Amino acid sequence: MHIHHMTRKEREIKDPQIQNNILKNGKFTTIGLCRDKEPYVVTLSYGYDELQHALYFHAANKGLKLDFIQENQAVCGTIIEDLGYLKDECAHAYRSLVYRGKISIVKDLQEKKEGMEVLFHHLEEDPDPIRDRTLKNDAAYNRVTMIKIEIDHISGKEGYD
Amino acid sequence: MHIHHMTRKEREIKDPQIQNNILKNGKFTTIGLCRDKEPYVVTLSYGYDELQHALYFHAANKGLKLDFIQENQAVCGTIIEDLGYLKDECAHAYRSLVYRGKISIVKDLQEKKEGMEVLFHHLEEDPDPIRDRTLKNDAAYNRVTMIKIEIDHISGKEGYD
Repeated sequence: MHIHHMTRKEREIKDPQIQNNILKNGKFTTIGLCRDKEPYVVTLSYGYDELQHALYFHAANKGLKLDFIQENQAVCGTIIEDLGYLKDECAHAYRSLVYRGKISIVKDLQEKKEGMEVLFHHLEEDPDPIRDRTLKNDAAYNRVTMIKIEIDHISGKEGYD
Repeated sequence: MHIHHMTRKEREIKDPQIQNNILKNGKFTTIGLCRDKEPYVVTLSYGYDELQHALYFHAANKGLKLDFIQENQAVCGTIIEDLGYLKDECAHAYRSLVYRGKISIVKDLQEKKEGMEVLFHHLEEDPDPIRDRTLKNDAAYNRVTMIKIEIDHISGKEGYD
């Protein structure tokens, strides 16, 4: 909130360790894509690969987001930690990241498998039951589209907004 | 989540009444803008004006989102109700809206005042303390930029993702 006289505290999160924790703890992210002059946003569960500084998602083999990705690989996304509304301040407490990067479809089977492991380990305490149930063999991977975001730049904020 | 064999239930929310409730109950929204081929997302507290089917926001008088708005008024935004993670399903339960519309800066003082009332009433149980503290006179409104989104199209989903 930016009204003059309004109590407002906000600071940048510059510490890569804290940014990293938000990436590790987040469960879903809203991404913005853009085709010609048309913006598009979609919210997806993700897995974070710390070594590659990349996010993995899976999706159906068809859909609007794939059409957008094929036209433009630039992506801007956000992860929000909602820390609750502040009464009388017209503001929410939060921590958030906004990242920019390149979004692409993973074609390589080996990377698809690794990406799915990243996703399962990020989202599940015990990834075995869901993996065993859903991805029994290589053919099962053909029914899944794996999307990857390579993060180039990240900024963080915490405060009230 | 779209993996074959994975339990996945999702349905469209077509009922305008339910869409309306999500708009009324939400506190913040992530919007996607696009300048040339560059996407941008930002998350903002909002007020919903039911009669106009419009959202109001306020912002500082400068900033990246204003630059984007000046170049392209097309907007796509989302409001998410996070209903919690579903263990062993690699999925979140949620209700969400995605809307498209036109984003603009409100210049007219009278509409700025009305927009600010919408925002206060949406976000606060008792809007008097914050209004009295922050917007004492017309000059105070010059220090605030009011942004409006007129919603043209909306779609809703609920399920696990």
